[in-house]
Amino acid sequence: MFEQLGLIGCGLMGGSFALALKKAGLVKRVVGYSKSPSTTDRARQLGVIDVEAPSALLAVAGADIVLLAVPVSATESTLKAIKHLVNPQMLIMDVGSTKADVVHAARGALRDQLGSFVPAHPITGREVAGVEYAEADLYAGRQVILTPIERTLTGQLRKAEAVWSAIGCRVQSMSPESHDAAFAAVSHLPHLLAFAMMNSINAQPEGDVFLSLAGPGFRDFTRIAASDPKVWRDILLANRDELLAQSRHFGQALQQLEQAMQKGDGQGIEDLITLASETRAHWRMGAQRSS
Amino acid sequence: MFEQLGLIGCGLMGGSFALALKKAGLVKRVVGYSKSPSTTDRARQLGVIDVEAPSALLAVAGADIVLLAVPVSATESTLKAIKHLVNPQMLIMDVGSTKADVVHAARGALRDQLGSFVPAHPITGREVAGVEYAEADLYAGRQVILTPIERTLTGQLRKAEAVWSAIGCRVQSMSPESHDAAFAAVSHLPHLLAFAMMNSINAQPEGDVFLSLAGPGFRDFTRIAASDPKVWRDILLANRDELLAQSRHFGQALQQLEQAMQKGDGQGIEDLITLASETRAHWRMGAQRSS
Repeated sequence: MFEQLGLIGCGLMGGSFALALKKAGLVKRVVGYSKSPSTTDRARQLGVIDVEAPSALLAVAGADIVLLAVPVSATESTLKAIKHLVNPQMLIMDVGSTKADVVHAARGALRDQLGSFVPAHPITGREVAGVEYAEADLYAGRQVILTPIERTLTGQLRKAEAVWSAIGCRVQSMSPESHDAAFAAVSHLPHLLAFAMMNSINAQPEGDVFLSLAGPGFRDFTRIAASDPKVWRDILLANRDELLAQSRHFGQALQQLEQAMQKGDGQGIEDLITLASETRAHWRMGAQRSS
Repeated sequence: MFEQLGLIGCGLMGGSFALALKKAGLVKRVVGYSKSPSTTDRARQLGVIDVEAPSALLAVAGADIVLLAVPVSATESTLKAIKHLVNPQMLIMDVGSTKADVVHAARGALRDQLGSFVPAHPITGREVAGVEYAEADLYAGRQVILTPIERTLTGQLRKAEAVWSAIGCRVQSMSPESHDAAFAAVSHLPHLLAFAMMNSINAQPEGDVFLSLAGPGFRDFTRIAASDPKVWRDILLANRDELLAQSRHFGQALQQLEQAMQKGDGQGIEDLITLASETRAHWRMGAQRSS
């Protein structure tokens, strides 16, 4: 049980975390701050936060748990703004989709207080943004990845595991680097490819005709291309190296298929598609790995 | 109104066409043939066809409308097998996903009777195969693309338009080459990329860990990777040149994004994502083009 949540960023992710903690009876009071005063005001009106703070620093004053739910690119400046009130009894977490850059920012900003920070990535979200869409169940049944480093305090890591579990998440820990490689492969690369797919069609004079003929396969394949440009600009930059590495792996797999096509190697094509098809058919979202 | 449908290939696509014609009161009798006698037998038991034919040629005897619903790679041999009974009063169509290769096969096989053949591609299907899944409404509300050539008889083209319209399709005509370019862009390339995506993850030692973390974006992006290997082997080979051309267009769009990433050009990345995101957000499946 926490006394006070300091929430920095009262949008969909942050607001939902506050509501989830309240619903689970895990916090007595939520003090919130958003860059836009109208967002903070709205969050209070909606009952997502109890008290509006005029700055990030003042949202942290008196808090024993702090959540940063800001764009990844704002992590470092936010941590710098609050560092004077961070102490070893405080649990600080973020919700960013990339982790090595967040850890780097935290090292630079928090220094002696780095041990209070537990980097977190809850695997959830919606295609809408804003505190109006915040809901207490956004995190229920989802995975959250924690990426502690050598200086993370064990006590804060245990508290982090407990609070995410209590709001219904399955908790996994891994290194920031493993996290970023994995999400480059299964999230960031699919987004990059979907963006490129739309732009490729756009760039062709017959693009409108092509689009008028597209069916359900195209619809599902390109759904993620409609994602928010600023959020994804940050992710593509923050996880650039891992993402470019995954794109090279992908390029090799594509080249294998294209070479079989160029050779007219029907059996080779069929074997490559069979491998892909069986892997996909056996995959289940959120399934535990067997190993 | 037709007297007799000769159905060659009594699977999902062919069986559904027979049921749709019956439901619309467009045909008196359906004579069917499948390569596997048990399929033909099952089609008759299910009432999809009325009479079993022992060969493709005999399925055509007495027919005034003929549908080939066989794998694209079997088109030429099937047309050769029936050509002695083809006449100018007969409408012959196929349902293949590629059209230039089908037209090429028809030119070689039908020669003087080429005018009876109207190449067709109904944009529908299901992730299951077999006559058991045939349904009268499979084509209702979907698009069908006809790709007549200079030697196609106008009378047969009009009949083809009428019959697809009567079972609920929106009919469009275009050249086989335009068809194949469009479907390379919006169907075949997404499949190729989805196959390569799965194989790329498979090829990495951490692939299982990556897959255990994949979420809804990945699920939708890769759904089509589970498609049938033999069907897609044929499509990748039959439409090879257009598909490789589309893959080159795609490679350029991907390279643009990667170059902006490598330069750390945040504005450039955001602009490219915005283009993709807006194009996707404005697209509606099956919408008529405004031009």
